[in-house]
Amino acid sequence: LKLIKPWAPKDSIAVIGSGSWATALVKIFTDSKLFVHWYIHREEDAIYIKKYLKNPKYLTSVKFKRNRIKVSHNLNETLNICLWVVFAIPSAFIESILKTIEIDLSKKIIVSGVKGILPQSNKHLGDFLRDEFNIPLSQFILIAGPTHAEEIALERLSYLTLVSENESIAAQLQTKLNVPYVQCHYSGDLLGIEYASILKNIYAIASGIAFGLGYGDNFQSVLISNSMGEMERFLYALNPIERSLTKSAYLGDLLVTAYSAFSRNRRFGTLLGRGYTVKGIQSEMQMIAEGFFALKPLYLLAQNQKLSLPIFSTVYGIVHEGLPAKKGFKWLTKKLV
Amino acid sequence: LKLIKPWAPKDSIAVIGSGSWATALVKIFTDSKLFVHWYIHREEDAIYIKKYLKNPKYLTSVKFKRNRIKVSHNLNETLNICLWVVFAIPSAFIESILKTIEIDLSKKIIVSGVKGILPQSNKHLGDFLRDEFNIPLSQFILIAGPTHAEEIALERLSYLTLVSENESIAAQLQTKLNVPYVQCHYSGDLLGIEYASILKNIYAIASGIAFGLGYGDNFQSVLISNSMGEMERFLYALNPIERSLTKSAYLGDLLVTAYSAFSRNRRFGTLLGRGYTVKGIQSEMQMIAEGFFALKPLYLLAQNQKLSLPIFSTVYGIVHEGLPAKKGFKWLTKKLV
Repeated sequence: LKLIKPWAPKDSIAVIGSGSWATALVKIFTDSKLFVHWYIHREEDAIYIKKYLKNPKYLTSVKFKRNRIKVSHNLNETLNICLWVVFAIPSAFIESILKTIEIDLSKKIIVSGVKGILPQSNKHLGDFLRDEFNIPLSQFILIAGPTHAEEIALERLSYLTLVSENESIAAQLQTKLNVPYVQCHYSGDLLGIEYASILKNIYAIASGIAFGLGYGDNFQSVLISNSMGEMERFLYALNPIERSLTKSAYLGDLLVTAYSAFSRNRRFGTLLGRGYTVKGIQSEMQMIAEGFFALKPLYLLAQNQKLSLPIFSTVYGIVHEGLPAKKGFKWLTKKLV
Repeated sequence: LKLIKPWAPKDSIAVIGSGSWATALVKIFTDSKLFVHWYIHREEDAIYIKKYLKNPKYLTSVKFKRNRIKVSHNLNETLNICLWVVFAIPSAFIESILKTIEIDLSKKIIVSGVKGILPQSNKHLGDFLRDEFNIPLSQFILIAGPTHAEEIALERLSYLTLVSENESIAAQLQTKLNVPYVQCHYSGDLLGIEYASILKNIYAIASGIAFGLGYGDNFQSVLISNSMGEMERFLYALNPIERSLTKSAYLGDLLVTAYSAFSRNRRFGTLLGRGYTVKGIQSEMQMIAEGFFALKPLYLLAQNQKLSLPIFSTVYGIVHEGLPAKKGFKWLTKKLV
């Protein structure tokens, strides 16, 4: 007599990833009464989550309801079940995971929680999926911040911007994120918000370097406001449309990343400012600083556009060209307004 | 044979005020090899500073050189000696102090460290001095942030924006602020930066209220980016010129005030968010929240301009109309983007 199965496609969604942001999204979807088919790459993590209904590594305070999730270690199986697929994997890993996909994705609706540029193809996820998997951009939605996963775990009010060329699928996604601690807005500026959400990581690294070098709050505020100025020039050069940069998906996302203690990019920068090498930091940090991977492709883009971006260039020099952080920032202080 | 007196008018400057910002400015001027005639309103403070060469209440770690300052309790005498006069008094007190001036100020160059609207006349200091003391705006310079006095005491690199219709006197002031921990920029946008530096205090109160109510970092970033949007609309309505709001005097000043633990306005807001009344807070706090005094005159201005400013209106409602902070912010959360 049980006609409605909780895992029926209509009310189910696939989430690919087991990091903090993937875990936060699973929490939102399940709190919003969806059934989540949750693909976990590492088998021992999948076993742990199945058993304890908690992620062993991220947002460990969040316990999931057994009747709301189905954990899987089989990617193709998970993708096959659901029309809606959410990717929430660090950009550095996504290409190798996508290579293992054998099924046709061209009819799927893809939600991206991936912030960054895919390092092998130098593309955004949306463009990569269009080119490699024949998924049109009209089936693609980016979930943008400003949102630390850690505060989703605490159910602190957070704003998400759902970015797509297709407003109607963004509206459908909004109904799937229907919890009191999340408020959604729509934007059509896919290119602008993709790049804003990547650039903010680089500026958060800059903010961390300044902190690590001992600069204070007065300087931070100058650095971050100038970062916003650089971001404005960068986005306008890429796509010269009118956009209100004081919306939360642009300025807000920069602020939460550059000012918050939760930010991996800021911590990465802080260690650079304290004199650690990139290699030393990568072996010491558990989390990945997305901004690191974005530096090279964005540097090429900025050079092509002949943009003058002193903060960006200084971070690039420190990370990739052996520029001592102290010297780089001494030069930079003369360029800020 | 000592022909050059250190207190000769050429290298001397009068500073009126004994708060944290006045004390920071005296530090910068004396470190920059000027001689400061320092007017202190409270006689016991003047005696203390004369004796110990330290402010008893603010930036108490800063010790002044005996041969660089002359402390005075006689305002007219101090004003009479110097061509350059720096006012750094809370806006709430300045009118009553200015009433006691008996000498002609019309040839003086006035530097304002006063942030706020004078509560009796509802004017900025520059306009008030022009109307009441015949000092033309071409002799008026505003020193704008983003700068916490506490970090000047620590000699942490800080950026000042010198704002005047008269670029040449701003350049002269810059030579008087020649210390390695301060970097100066010029702006001609007197009206815009006056209002930006007042509005930021109100948005810092909002930020404090949110913190006091328990909202997290994600929400703060949304609140502050929307505050910048409101500020943009407000400044454009008052004076529709092209201005780059990502310069430190606009966005930077908002950030340092809204995010920093040093901010009085933020602390005032935090207590409001925790349920304290305005009266209760005023009796408990040692420092004055400038934003409180700015609310009424700016509210009238915003109403005249028919501006829609949800954050500003919510703070106004909480401070002046008995709106419970929790209820006000619940409404506000639906208005932010």
